[in-house]
Amino acid sequence: MEKSLLQQARASYVPKLPIALRGAVGIKEGAPTQSADNQEEIKTLFPNTYGMPLIEFVAAEKSDAAAMNVGVILSGGQAPGGHNVITGLFDTIKKLNPENRLFGFILGPGGLVSHNYMEITADFIEDYRNTGGFDMIGSGRTKLEETEQFEKGLEIIRKLDIKALVIIGGDDSNTNACVLAEYYAAKQYGVQVIGCPKTIDGDLKNSQIETSFGFDTATKTYSELIGNIERDCNSARKYWHFIKLMGRSASHIALECALQCQPNICIVSEEVEAKDMTLNEIVEQICTSVAYRAANGDNFGVVLIPEGLIEFVPAIGRLIAELNDLLAAHGADYKDLDADAQRQYIISHLSDANKATFETLPADVARQLSLDRDPHGNVQVSLIETEKLISEMCAAKLKQWAAEGKYTGKFAAQHHFFGYEGRCATPSNFDADYCYALGTSAAQLIANGKTGYMAVVKNTTAPVEEWQAGGVPITMMMNMERRNGQMKPVIRKALVELDGAPFKAFAAVRDTWAKETCYVYPGPIQYWGPSEVCDRPTMTLILEHK
Amino acid sequence: MEKSLLQQARASYVPKLPIALRGAVGIKEGAPTQSADNQEEIKTLFPNTYGMPLIEFVAAEKSDAAAMNVGVILSGGQAPGGHNVITGLFDTIKKLNPENRLFGFILGPGGLVSHNYMEITADFIEDYRNTGGFDMIGSGRTKLEETEQFEKGLEIIRKLDIKALVIIGGDDSNTNACVLAEYYAAKQYGVQVIGCPKTIDGDLKNSQIETSFGFDTATKTYSELIGNIERDCNSARKYWHFIKLMGRSASHIALECALQCQPNICIVSEEVEAKDMTLNEIVEQICTSVAYRAANGDNFGVVLIPEGLIEFVPAIGRLIAELNDLLAAHGADYKDLDADAQRQYIISHLSDANKATFETLPADVARQLSLDRDPHGNVQVSLIETEKLISEMCAAKLKQWAAEGKYTGKFAAQHHFFGYEGRCATPSNFDADYCYALGTSAAQLIANGKTGYMAVVKNTTAPVEEWQAGGVPITMMMNMERRNGQMKPVIRKALVELDGAPFKAFAAVRDTWAKETCYVYPGPIQYWGPSEVCDRPTMTLILEHK
Repeated sequence: MEKSLLQQARASYVPKLPIALRGAVGIKEGAPTQSADNQEEIKTLFPNTYGMPLIEFVAAEKSDAAAMNVGVILSGGQAPGGHNVITGLFDTIKKLNPENRLFGFILGPGGLVSHNYMEITADFIEDYRNTGGFDMIGSGRTKLEETEQFEKGLEIIRKLDIKALVIIGGDDSNTNACVLAEYYAAKQYGVQVIGCPKTIDGDLKNSQIETSFGFDTATKTYSELIGNIERDCNSARKYWHFIKLMGRSASHIALECALQCQPNICIVSEEVEAKDMTLNEIVEQICTSVAYRAANGDNFGVVLIPEGLIEFVPAIGRLIAELNDLLAAHGADYKDLDADAQRQYIISHLSDANKATFETLPADVARQLSLDRDPHGNVQVSLIETEKLISEMCAAKLKQWAAEGKYTGKFAAQHHFFGYEGRCATPSNFDADYCYALGTSAAQLIANGKTGYMAVVKNTTAPVEEWQAGGVPITMMMNMERRNGQMKPVIRKALVELDGAPFKAFAAVRDTWAKETCYVYPGPIQYWGPSEVCDRPTMTLILEHK
Repeated sequence: MEKSLLQQARASYVPKLPIALRGAVGIKEGAPTQSADNQEEIKTLFPNTYGMPLIEFVAAEKSDAAAMNVGVILSGGQAPGGHNVITGLFDTIKKLNPENRLFGFILGPGGLVSHNYMEITADFIEDYRNTGGFDMIGSGRTKLEETEQFEKGLEIIRKLDIKALVIIGGDDSNTNACVLAEYYAAKQYGVQVIGCPKTIDGDLKNSQIETSFGFDTATKTYSELIGNIERDCNSARKYWHFIKLMGRSASHIALECALQCQPNICIVSEEVEAKDMTLNEIVEQICTSVAYRAANGDNFGVVLIPEGLIEFVPAIGRLIAELNDLLAAHGADYKDLDADAQRQYIISHLSDANKATFETLPADVARQLSLDRDPHGNVQVSLIETEKLISEMCAAKLKQWAAEGKYTGKFAAQHHFFGYEGRCATPSNFDADYCYALGTSAAQLIANGKTGYMAVVKNTTAPVEEWQAGGVPITMMMNMERRNGQMKPVIRKALVELDGAPFKAFAAVRDTWAKETCYVYPGPIQYWGPSEVCDRPTMTLILEHK
C-alpha cells in the first residue's frame, strides 16, 4: 500500500485517552435503566438485556485478563474514525492478554453470515492507524434481523472461539446489535454483542450519546469546501451557489456547516416539516434574500440544502404518498402510456390538494416523481437533484418578481453536492481520539462480560483526559416505532430540535446572514499546530454542552 | 469580518523569502532576449518593450528609495495566493519608502477604466494575510485591449500619481499587460506595467515561469477530495466515480491530481487530441479497466476527466465546427422546428463523417450541441456534463459487452465536478511563500524602473532561501497566434506535453492503476507539522525539475 506523506506522518499519532482508560480499568455500575419510551413492550421484547445499569469506567489496580477472541463488523455508510475504533479495540484486547485475537468480518454484517473474515494482526493494523475509510475490512448494508442469520453467524463464532462481537454502525445497526445480543443471551450461547455509535449524519445521539463518530470530520471537511466556495462567491460576486449536503433523515450536517460557515441561507428540514412549509415558501424565503442583496448590488450568495429536504416538505410528502398508492394500484396500464399521457393520467387521478402541489413542480421533478419506483414501491427521492430544483424554482420566481418590478438583479446559479467527499476523510484529532476511546471502551465492556451495551464516551467538550468512558444498555435508548407497517423496537433517531441550542443559535442570527455577507472560512482540518485549531469539537457539540 | 480559528492562527504566518529579497535588493541584467517565435512581428509590434534583458535580483548594499505610488489589479478567475502577492507588494513598497501608497482597482481591470479603486492601507491589509480568495479588491474579466481603455485608465493613474500598475492574471491578462506597457512606453507616459503569473490551470508556464500561482493549492485541495472519494470507493466497493476537474484549455490539473492520487483512469485531453482519439475509444479504454477489475470482483473505480475534454476530441471538434456554421447559416428557420425535426435537419445537412459522430452521441448531448449558441455563435461546451456523458456511454458499452459475454460485473456510477472548491482555498505554504515573493519581486521591478516585465521566481523545488527571484520581459514569452480570426501576439499557452516528465511518469504506471487498486490518499493541506507534509511542491513541479 503506497502511502501519502500525510498518512506516513499521521501514522505515528498516538490517540489521547481519557484517564480512566489509560491503565488498568474497573467498572462502576449505576442504577437499573428504563427504555426511552414504551417500557413494558421493550422489556417484554428484551427480557435478558433490559434494565441493565449504566457503566462508567474507573481506574483500577488490575484488569480482568481472561483470554478472549473478538469479532468486529463495520456496518453501513463510511464514517471517518472507523479504523480507530478497531485499533483501540485491538490494542486493548492485546494489552489485556497478548493471546487474544481480533477477527474482522469482511464487507459488513454479510461477512458474519457468509463466514467471510480475516484475522486482524499487529502488522496488518499498522497501515490503518488514524486513517479514514472502512477499507481495512470493508463495510456493507446487510441487516442482521433473522434468526437464520444469527444461527449461521454462530457457526463461525464458535469456530473462531469468539467471545464477543463489536458492531460499529448507526441507529439501525445498533438496534440490530441489541436484537442479536438478546437472542444470544436468551439462547445462553455465551456470546456478547457490543455496539458503537457511528454515522456522519449526527442523528444517533441522546442523553447518553453526545455525538456519533465521523460527524466531526465530515462536517469539517464539508465546511472547508463551503468556506472555499463562499470566498470564491465573495470574490467573483456573480453566482448564487446551491449546495446540497448528505444527510437524508436529519439536517444536523447542514446546520453544523451553517454554524461554521455562516452562509446566507440554510434550510433545515425539521423546521420545514414543523411549520408545514411548502416548496414555494422555501423558494420565497431564498428569493427574499436574493432580492434584498441584489438591491445592495450583491448578486451572489450561498444556500445550504439538506439532502432529505423534499421528503420533509409536508405537501410533497403527501403527494408522494398518494402517488405511490396510485402507481402501485394502476402501474401496469400506466406504464405503457407516453410521458404526456402519464402526466394527464396522474393529474386526473390525484386528489385536489395533491394535484395542486404536482402542478406547481418543475416538469422534470414531476416526471421523476412519476417514474422509477424502487423495489419497495417508493419513489427514488435521492435521484431528484434538490439543489437544482430549488435554484430553478428561484429563477422562475425571480423572473416573476422582476416582471412585477420587485426585483432588478442578476441571478446565475452553480450547484454542488457534497457527501462522498467527507465520509472517508482522514479523521480529525477529535474523531481519532474519540474513536480510539470507543474501541477501548468496547474492549473493556467485553472483558467485563457485558452484552447489549453500546460503548460511549462523554464530556467530550472537555480536554480528552477528562472524558468519561463507559457503556449504555442499548435498550435504554429504545422505543416502539412503525417501520414498514409494523411496530418495532428501535433506537430513536435524533432529529434537529427546534428548541435545541444549535438551532436557536442559528435562528438568532440567520436574518443577518441572509442580508449581509457574514461568511466564515474554516479551512482544511489541521492535525498539527495550535490546539484551538486542531482539537476543537463541532459547534453543535459545543452549543449542546454549554 | 469574523474569522475562523484557522484564519486567526494563519494570519501570523510570515512567508519565507528568497535570500536575495530579504534585505536591500539590486539587479543583475542578462543578455537581450528574443520572443518565443515570430521575432520580427513581435519586435515590430512592441518596439519599446522588445529585447529587454532577463533580470535577477541580488542582495545589495542599499535599495533605490524614490517615492512611488502603485496600482494593483486582480484579473480573471480566482487562484489561491492572490492576496499574498498584494501583501508582498505592499510590504515591499512600504519598506522602500513609508510614503509610498498602494491602490487597488476594484473588481478587476474594469476598475481601472471606471476609476473604481481603494487605497490599501496597513490596517486593511492585515485581515488578508495568507488568506485565499480575491475578495480584498475583487476580480473581473474585462479585457484591457482598447486605446480608449488605456487612456481612460491613465486619467486615474495621473490623479493618484501612480508610477506603476501590477496586473495579476493568466496568459491573456499578461499579454494585455504587455500591450498596455508598450502603449504607455510608446506614449512616453512614464507609467510602468508589471505582470504576475496567476492561474490554477497551470497553463501559464515556460522556460522562465516554473509554475503559475494557485496551481499548488488548488490541485492539493482537489487531490484531498479525490483521495477521500477513492477511500470511500475502496471501502464501499460498489461505485465507479467519474470526477470532472476544472481546466478547460489544458489537463495539468487532472494530471497532477492523478500523480497525487493514482486513480484507475485519468484522461488527458492533449493525448486525446494528439492520437486523434474518438469518444468511443475513450469509453472503450475506461470500459476495459471496468471489465478487467470486475473479473477480479472489483466493481469500483475512479476516473478523472479534464473539463475541456470534449473540445479536444478531434471528431467532436470537427462536428462542433460544422454545426456552428450550419446553425449560423440556417438558424432562423431551424429555430422554429421541434426537437425531432431539428435533429433530422441536422442529420440531413451534416457531412458524412460528422453525421456519423453526431449519431453516436447520447441524445441529450446531441441536443445540447444543437442548441444554445453563445453570443459569438459557439456551442456552450461548458454546459455539457462531460462526466455524466462519459459514464452513460460507458454504461451503454458495458451493456453491449455483457450481451456479448465479454463482461459480467455490476456498474453503478457517481459524478462529481470540482472547481470552485479549490480556487479560493487558503494558500498552501508553497503558494503563500511563492506569491509573497512574486509581489516582492514586482515591487522591486517597479523600483528599478522596469516595464513590460513579469515578476518571476525560479528554482522553486529547492528550499525557499535558494529560490531565485527576478523579472522576464513579457515579449520574450510571445508568439503570433490566430484568435477570433486574427493573428495576434500572445503568450503561448502551456499544454500538457506528452514527452514531458509528468506525463511520462503517469504513462509508465497507468496500466497498473487501471487494473489494480493503487489509490493514494493525500489528505487536506497542512500548514503546521512536518515540513515534508507542509512544504512539498506539486508532483508536476518536482518531475519537471528533477
